[in-house]
Amino acid sequence: MLKEIPRVVIIGGGFGGLYAAKALVSAPVEVTLIDRRNHHVFQPLLYQVATAGLSAIDVGEPIRRILRKQKNTAVHLAEVASVDLAARRVMLADGDAVGYDYLIVATGAQDFYFGHDDWEPYAPGLKSIEDALEIRRRVLSAFEQAEVTRDPDVQRSLLTFVVIGAGPTGAELAGALAELSRHTLANEFRHFDAGDSRVLLIEAGERILSDYPPRLSARAHRQLERLGVEIRTGAPVTGVDADGISLGEERLLCRTILWAAGVAASGLGASLGTDLDRAGRVMVEPDLTVPGHREVFVVGDLAHVVEGGRQLPGIAPAAIQMGKHAAESITRTVRSEPTRSFRYVDRGTMATLGRSSAIAVIKGIRLWGLPAWLAWLFIHILFLIGFRNRAVVLFEWTRSYLTYSRSARLILYPDESD
Amino acid sequence: MLKEIPRVVIIGGGFGGLYAAKALVSAPVEVTLIDRRNHHVFQPLLYQVATAGLSAIDVGEPIRRILRKQKNTAVHLAEVASVDLAARRVMLADGDAVGYDYLIVATGAQDFYFGHDDWEPYAPGLKSIEDALEIRRRVLSAFEQAEVTRDPDVQRSLLTFVVIGAGPTGAELAGALAELSRHTLANEFRHFDAGDSRVLLIEAGERILSDYPPRLSARAHRQLERLGVEIRTGAPVTGVDADGISLGEERLLCRTILWAAGVAASGLGASLGTDLDRAGRVMVEPDLTVPGHREVFVVGDLAHVVEGGRQLPGIAPAAIQMGKHAAESITRTVRSEPTRSFRYVDRGTMATLGRSSAIAVIKGIRLWGLPAWLAWLFIHILFLIGFRNRAVVLFEWTRSYLTYSRSARLILYPDESD
Repeated sequence: MLKEIPRVVIIGGGFGGLYAAKALVSAPVEVTLIDRRNHHVFQPLLYQVATAGLSAIDVGEPIRRILRKQKNTAVHLAEVASVDLAARRVMLADGDAVGYDYLIVATGAQDFYFGHDDWEPYAPGLKSIEDALEIRRRVLSAFEQAEVTRDPDVQRSLLTFVVIGAGPTGAELAGALAELSRHTLANEFRHFDAGDSRVLLIEAGERILSDYPPRLSARAHRQLERLGVEIRTGAPVTGVDADGISLGEERLLCRTILWAAGVAASGLGASLGTDLDRAGRVMVEPDLTVPGHREVFVVGDLAHVVEGGRQLPGIAPAAIQMGKHAAESITRTVRSEPTRSFRYVDRGTMATLGRSSAIAVIKGIRLWGLPAWLAWLFIHILFLIGFRNRAVVLFEWTRSYLTYSRSARLILYPDESD
Repeated sequence: MLKEIPRVVIIGGGFGGLYAAKALVSAPVEVTLIDRRNHHVFQPLLYQVATAGLSAIDVGEPIRRILRKQKNTAVHLAEVASVDLAARRVMLADGDAVGYDYLIVATGAQDFYFGHDDWEPYAPGLKSIEDALEIRRRVLSAFEQAEVTRDPDVQRSLLTFVVIGAGPTGAELAGALAELSRHTLANEFRHFDAGDSRVLLIEAGERILSDYPPRLSARAHRQLERLGVEIRTGAPVTGVDADGISLGEERLLCRTILWAAGVAASGLGASLGTDLDRAGRVMVEPDLTVPGHREVFVVGDLAHVVEGGRQLPGIAPAAIQMGKHAAESITRTVRSEPTRSFRYVDRGTMATLGRSSAIAVIKGIRLWGLPAWLAWLFIHILFLIGFRNRAVVLFEWTRSYLTYSRSARLILYPDESD
């Protein structure tokens, strides 16, 4: 009698899901990776697309292409509606179902507006390439409208850019926006000076980049101010609308508002029907499985994993390590070997603050300024291995470093086909 | 008393309008270029974006950036509603008006469905970057859906690609689609062989590329067939809908239909209130001015210009020559020098037929095969001068020539922001 080949289904083609699939390349299993997009997104560089430094295709690569040589793996473009743990089936939005013997859920996180979902249309977040292109469209269009308007108040509001939330994404966005207006767009407009535009970084907490040690965070603060970013800490946003934001009594008029303040786990976590933490992450066992379901793993930003009293950071290396761990556990189980608990290996965190400056903590060593930036560049370029675009991205980067220009400045109107 | 500086308004930032603006760099005039998009499109390579070979930013460049060093020129992002020739004002869609002393209308051509505008949603044309991204989305999504469906009839229809119209754009699209399915996507799907997909090129006339000499057109025919394109000539399309096309009695089921069959002049021509030809082009004087309005020029695809008994081809070199001529006439008039009639200098035409094959007529010399393709490549790379992306495009091309891969394969959903 032939033994059935175990079916592994992976939901999500982000870092967690993709690296899980890759780690199963020679396992005696059949893998199906389901994603609603055809491409993996290199999230750490998404802010560069939003600020016109890189093209969409520089940070996205078809999942099918990445896995094309992996014969035991099929890629399925579909939206997942829910998971039926009892029947071991993934239910798709189109009504189909996909059965599994092992499941890896890696659907990540989404923007969270702290109960103010009505703010979303005015303050888009940065999770997908579509988000990045929408932000690029808004930012570049604001400059274009400022060139055309004759009302100085409207112009001022069009040239005021607000980033809400000063974690790594917010800090990187604000730094890149300041460079865009101070350098790239200098001398291109005839009716205003792009350098007069304001970039504000608004943070409810008492300091920016609060995941970093206070001294690094202070250095980052000074560096961003040197770039021209106005930083407001201890300033919780109380209102967001089409004309601007409210900070308690204070009103700030601005046409472009970007959201980098909060993320919540993907809604699919709730459909599992198991315990969640306050941010919606799934409470998993030490081996990343769902309690009572040794065959179901949750990895990446959707997993509640605490080490040293703190939730793991929502960064690519953490997701990759979890994805690989889940794959290894499945391989061991299939081979009737015992599985192991997951342990996160901290290889460091880093954030860029515009051209040639960054902060980083790598194996306990704190870096800032140019050394941190060079480390950041080196690691990100290395990391792009497997992406076809590494050479192109490096080329683009060298070019824009030398010239201050940002090359992806198209305003594309998606609803217009003519 | 100060002499007023003459105001030149250019409508359209395509080849005609852009080169008119450039040619006015040192003229004693104030130039305003109005376009509803922020970018110039390198139209000859648009089919490469539609077939995932190049990224949007490889073929588009902000008009403002191209003209940034030209101090006498402002770029105005706006939609033009009409021209008031009597009052010498350009009326914008937002209600504003821009006055001029000289006007250059260069709004080009748009897709024309021969009175069947209801076909448009099912058979998009290829005029803008948005069009190209829409076509890319449809083509790549068809393959993804074919991987998921279990119905063999639906799968066959999803894997049938029809290009209507076998002029240069249609031939280039069909050739690139054949290569995409035969080579790039080979081995990436698990439930069908991408090489089994069909690419049909449908032409109402008796031969493809009818602007070329019959023998070159026959060579192109054979080359496309070798690539795997099924060519149907003498086959006028009588119906287009969501499920396929009709050719008289015959019904062809296909989910992806691309339109390259007809163009008509931009609607702005009609708003001038002067005589038009049957395709809606403006009947201009030998110096490209509108009859009775020596201060208004029409250039590019919108101008009816006949030489040797034939309308000039709708290609970039013709538009560029006309744009430069209009600029020169304005400069001469401002300097009280006599103007001259426009004369087109035919430097050749060429069309590519997939990797390493093309046809070309250059100064009367007919080329085909690899020599024509190398000439095409050389001229197009040269032509990209002034575009930042020349090196990147060349890099991409070399890469995809060597590897058959096409790198811009993202399916982006414009309406989804999350």
